[in-house]
Amino acid sequence: MKALFIGANKSGKSRLALEYTLKLASKKPYFIATGIPTDEEMKKKIEIHKKDRQNRFITIEEPLEIYRTIKPIEAYKLVDCLSFWVSNMLLNSKEDEILTEAEKISQIENSIFVINEVGAGVIPANELARKFAHYNGLVSQIVAKNSDEVYFCTAGLSLKVK
Amino acid sequence: MKALFIGANKSGKSRLALEYTLKLASKKPYFIATGIPTDEEMKKKIEIHKKDRQNRFITIEEPLEIYRTIKPIEAYKLVDCLSFWVSNMLLNSKEDEILTEAEKISQIENSIFVINEVGAGVIPANELARKFAHYNGLVSQIVAKNSDEVYFCTAGLSLKVK
Amino acid sequence: MKALFIGANKSGKSRLALEYTLKLASKKPYFIATGIPTDEEMKKKIEIHKKDRQNRFITIEEPLEIYRTIKPIEAYKLVDCLSFWVSNMLLNSKEDEILTEAEKISQIENSIFVINEVGAGVIPANELARKFAHYNGLVSQIVAKNSDEVYFCTAGLSLKVK
Repeated sequence: MKALFIGANKSGKSRLALEYTLKLASKKPYFIATGIPTDEEMKKKIEIHKKDRQNRFITIEEPLEIYRTIKPIEAYKLVDCLSFWVSNMLLNSKEDEILTEAEKISQIENSIFVINEVGAGVIPANELARKFAHYNGLVSQIVAKNSDEVYFCTAGLSLKVK
Repeated sequence: MKALFIGANKSGKSRLALEYTLKLASKKPYFIATGIPTDEEMKKKIEIHKKDRQNRFITIEEPLEIYRTIKPIEAYKLVDCLSFWVSNMLLNSKEDEILTEAEKISQIENSIFVINEVGAGVIPANELARKFAHYNGLVSQIVAKNSDEVYFCTAGLSLKVK
Repeated sequence: MKALFIGANKSGKSRLALEYTLKLASKKPYFIATGIPTDEEMKKKIEIHKKDRQNRFITIEEPLEIYRTIKPIEAYKLVDCLSFWVSNMLLNSKEDEILTEAEKISQIENSIFVINEVGAGVIPANELARKFAHYNGLVSQIVAKNSDEVYFCTAGLSLKVK
């Protein structure tokens, strides 16, 4: 089973994906954290999430090498989130590898992915932001295509679109 | 009955919530306007909306004290919109009260709420904008959780998600 | 049959609308391209799309006069996209004609329209961007109202909302 949870920032997609993963998993699932805390608010948020998860998930922090990290794991793994990963790839000059990596990542069984919808506002003038939105959208499409189920999240609720 | 209408700016959510409220109400409903007009375009827009509503709603303008305003009203009340309210709360140094207020507001019977989806674009660099998006998203989740029905609006149409 | 595909930037709406049009059309459909390439990336993208379409669509490039262009065509026509058109209208001082034109355009039979959702991020401070978001949203509503079917697109998938 492979699934994707897509939604706006603060749409509740992480929590929905977490509950979904726990419901599916017969043994302790993995949590692949791709985010690198960049400010105090985010640090605090990550700490709260970690505490909440600690007895229920095995957490691995990995900003870039998702494929290599999840490939050998048979148990369920929740990758939260692919938008941070896209951003990390761009900031580490790995733009050329994003789409092929996304294709590989999204074919690994027992994976639940989370991604932000970032393309539904006015397109920003900032070039890096536009590049990020471009790749984030393409990664969404690739992962959705390879997923068995896709959920659109809004206001803490999910709507099945596949 | 409590319901939430969420959607992008100009997705038609206000009109949809208005029609929905009128359909439910057996006696004249209240309209709680939280927006403070800040430019000519908005002033004009508010005037058009007011004119359209005037014989069908009792309008109360209240930028901050939503709970105190709607609590004693038994009739249906349409709160349009919670995003303006979140913005007003932040601009009036009431950040700490937003989430508890949202919890209280959303438990009042016969209330229809409108909120903007603002988190589906690239996250803005501006700190206040980010804080606004953060609280707006959390308020959406709180109100959706306490609502009986939730509608996602796009292109003037609504999709029931709860 | 008239249909609208709405979704975020990179939500796959163009491809979905294209496949939908080809499935409906009994003779070679038209593709009305409203976008004027403004940078290298866009130029490249347009070239790839053109190549992909070339044997299956008759392409007409028209940034402004959509109504005059599609009115005499009986075959299916895919207008991709109305957001570029709104932007072109604003940049050519035709703001006053946008809504009446949208009403006329959306009443022409055998038309498939594509439009971006641009209102689900924090409202930009830039005035032109706000005006664009305003008209883009109103055009979405007008076209959706006159369409037989409306699809919300996310992650390369579509959800029927009408």
